[in-house]
Amino acid sequence: MNPNVKRVEYAVRGPIVQRAVQIEKELKEGVKKPFTEVIKANIGDAHAMGQKPITFLRQVLALCSYPELLEDNKFPEDAKKRAQRILDSCGGHSIGAYSASQGIECIRQDVARYIERRDSGIPSSPDNIYLSTGASDAIVTMLKLLVCGEGRSRTGVMISIPQYPLYSAALADLGAVQISYYLDEDKCWSLDVAELRRALNAARQHCNPRVLCIINPGNPTGQVQSRQCIEDVIRFAKEEHLFLMADEVYQDNVYAEGCKFHSFKKVLFEMGPEYSSTVEMASFHSTSKCYMGECGFRGGYMEVINMDPEVKAQLTKLVSVRLCPPVPGQALLDLVVNPPQPDEPSYTTFIKERTAVLAALAEKARLTEEIFNTVPGITCNPVQGAMYTFPRITLPQKAIDKAKEEGQVPDMYYCMRLLEEEGICLVPGSGFGQREGTFHFRMTILPPIEKLKVVLQKIREFHLRFTQEFS
Amino acid sequence: MNPNVKRVEYAVRGPIVQRAVQIEKELKEGVKKPFTEVIKANIGDAHAMGQKPITFLRQVLALCSYPELLEDNKFPEDAKKRAQRILDSCGGHSIGAYSASQGIECIRQDVARYIERRDSGIPSSPDNIYLSTGASDAIVTMLKLLVCGEGRSRTGVMISIPQYPLYSAALADLGAVQISYYLDEDKCWSLDVAELRRALNAARQHCNPRVLCIINPGNPTGQVQSRQCIEDVIRFAKEEHLFLMADEVYQDNVYAEGCKFHSFKKVLFEMGPEYSSTVEMASFHSTSKCYMGECGFRGGYMEVINMDPEVKAQLTKLVSVRLCPPVPGQALLDLVVNPPQPDEPSYTTFIKERTAVLAALAEKARLTEEIFNTVPGITCNPVQGAMYTFPRITLPQKAIDKAKEEGQVPDMYYCMRLLEEEGICLVPGSGFGQREGTFHFRMTILPPIEKLKVVLQKIREFHLRFTQEFS
Repeated sequence: MNPNVKRVEYAVRGPIVQRAVQIEKELKEGVKKPFTEVIKANIGDAHAMGQKPITFLRQVLALCSYPELLEDNKFPEDAKKRAQRILDSCGGHSIGAYSASQGIECIRQDVARYIERRDSGIPSSPDNIYLSTGASDAIVTMLKLLVCGEGRSRTGVMISIPQYPLYSAALADLGAVQISYYLDEDKCWSLDVAELRRALNAARQHCNPRVLCIINPGNPTGQVQSRQCIEDVIRFAKEEHLFLMADEVYQDNVYAEGCKFHSFKKVLFEMGPEYSSTVEMASFHSTSKCYMGECGFRGGYMEVINMDPEVKAQLTKLVSVRLCPPVPGQALLDLVVNPPQPDEPSYTTFIKERTAVLAALAEKARLTEEIFNTVPGITCNPVQGAMYTFPRITLPQKAIDKAKEEGQVPDMYYCMRLLEEEGICLVPGSGFGQREGTFHFRMTILPPIEKLKVVLQKIREFHLRFTQEFS
Repeated sequence: MNPNVKRVEYAVRGPIVQRAVQIEKELKEGVKKPFTEVIKANIGDAHAMGQKPITFLRQVLALCSYPELLEDNKFPEDAKKRAQRILDSCGGHSIGAYSASQGIECIRQDVARYIERRDSGIPSSPDNIYLSTGASDAIVTMLKLLVCGEGRSRTGVMISIPQYPLYSAALADLGAVQISYYLDEDKCWSLDVAELRRALNAARQHCNPRVLCIINPGNPTGQVQSRQCIEDVIRFAKEEHLFLMADEVYQDNVYAEGCKFHSFKKVLFEMGPEYSSTVEMASFHSTSKCYMGECGFRGGYMEVINMDPEVKAQLTKLVSVRLCPPVPGQALLDLVVNPPQPDEPSYTTFIKERTAVLAALAEKARLTEEIFNTVPGITCNPVQGAMYTFPRITLPQKAIDKAKEEGQVPDMYYCMRLLEEEGICLVPGSGFGQREGTFHFRMTILPPIEKLKVVLQKIREFHLRFTQEFS
């Protein structure tokens, strides 16, 4: 079998999650445990954590699925109008027809208009929008397009450490060279161009660096990049002729005071034509995160900027082989980029629901940082954005030795013990990458506030007990 | 950029379809053409051709999308029961949650039971079922898993000629070696093991043949394999230690008298333990074809048989990187494998709708063969199954010369002329592969009967005119 596949690792759904599923089965079968349920805080899955879907989105999806409901008085007029418009743009007026491979045209137009509003009027063309099966699909497709060469001329792709392991998995699968640059934990996981340069220069010895991936707001680290930092990164990408991949799926998830989401595209265009007409870039978005959290629908898009027309033609060809992204996900994306307007009947409820989700997330972000920082041996940066905390844990040497004895990396040993003893499923920091000798875990902040408090309390107690045991 | 991507070709959505979309735009803008609409007979997209969705499927999908409808008296009880069961198996009772990467467990159970019913009780385990984003996704994933080696030890994959170009595209993308075996047009596109052996022996000189792909019922050729043929293929796969990939997405689409769908798995198990416990196999199915034609939902599954547990673990890991197949597509698949039962309220309507679709397809299959065979210079095998006809066209030498002058392959020139003159979009045979010196096109039989008659008549007239012009 394919040796590249063997090298792929994806911790977010790795061995610890498999064990969590097993424990859930054991609980169902009546096996006694020190807990009654497994809390899967390993993944940013809002609905699984009890978040309710946004009413308007689901009304339109029901109307699209079963258009007989368009006659039903229970559905608001704006929901019907949106559904009718989507159906009219589908083959045979059915979401069961294939769409264009790049995505339904009127939805790509809506995406372009959304980007223009977001970026204060900087133009966006539907021709540059590619709808996708979640953001993961678009990211993998773009990497596949860009990777080439053999040996020392093999494409090198710069990714942050810690990173979201989709990137390392895709690079392993493609046989591309991973170039790791480290985020600065002491400065709230910020990105420093000097570190980018160090990583790039070192990599030049053994590969051909061509791509720079950025996740902002950060996953798993939750930082929000400053405008200045983004400018610096763009300048660096231009100087070094790097293709910029901006993973911006958490663009609505910004909580910390003084922090604001700046899209790479907007900053690029504000830096003037010297940049906006030369730097090649792709930006990724998704229906899975933000306030909607509709992971199951696998909706998403990417916008490509300054892409060579011949390469773009190849991209269009490449996506056509898989026929099209799921149409229900495309429909959902259309509603996200084209939500109810103030003069429409669904507006008030929509805004109320959206605000409630985002306000609760902000509160949970604050609470998580606060409680973790009361635990001796846990240090936690502010969760400025996204949906995760990535606290540093200090492990006693005896625990590290014990883990080695068991053939596990220390943070995996820690997380497995936590799972077995408290029923809480986290992902070890080693699954995302971390500086040698440091240990972390990733936890989502998505559980409802009361449950989150319990989770944080349980981790606190476990950490103290674990530290005690190995002291 | 990636040179393998450049080598990828996918004719079903290639240049001719791009031109068709352009012509549609021109028509909208008021440009005068010898026709008023473009008929896209290039792809098996039932709903786009006017086929109505099956009521029961869409009712359940609406209920899953907007569970408030579970209180609505307009929906039948069995639809509500199915929706509730699906929702109960989703995280947070929402189809917006991620599912397990292999697919929702209760749906995999339903798939396994469906396979057991189909295969007269031969056991199927949910652990061997992987839900997917349409069949294409599963086929590409399986190929990726199996391909390895370099130079003469690079994996060779046997595919039929003509073939569905997903296969050649995926092999180009993976840098695997395509081993072409030819179907026998004179024997109704049947498969002959002697030809498999010829192709295999020739390929042994330059690669390591490891995989044999079969499409049954055939795409683009519409043949249905006999039980005897399937047995012969299995025996060959065993002798030559080939992994069998059985693309069986048209398993409900069998029309010709005396033809019957035999699943590779059933035949394998009926051949006794010598075969059923040794031959490695994967079978693929989809929600896009058969009577439902729900292409937009991207639902599908594969069943793996006799797969080495370590390889299976790698497969499970590989699919986890993309998180999960779209959950609405999974829900749809559940309804396809678990349709209304005779004692349930939706049964009568469901059966009536399904029968109507399949009966119309059988009639269209017959009609297509009959009309094409009245045209001098078109020879058409019976459409025994699937959704396509792949007739052979005789082109005058002057037409072939003219095409060469224009820098096009002759059947592309023919199809482009047909598109420009009659507004009918077909795919040239060269996009699927054909014996040197022969020419074909693929056309779906999906248009409604009255429209199909018009299409066939127009192709007839065009063919006569075209032949006349170059005589």
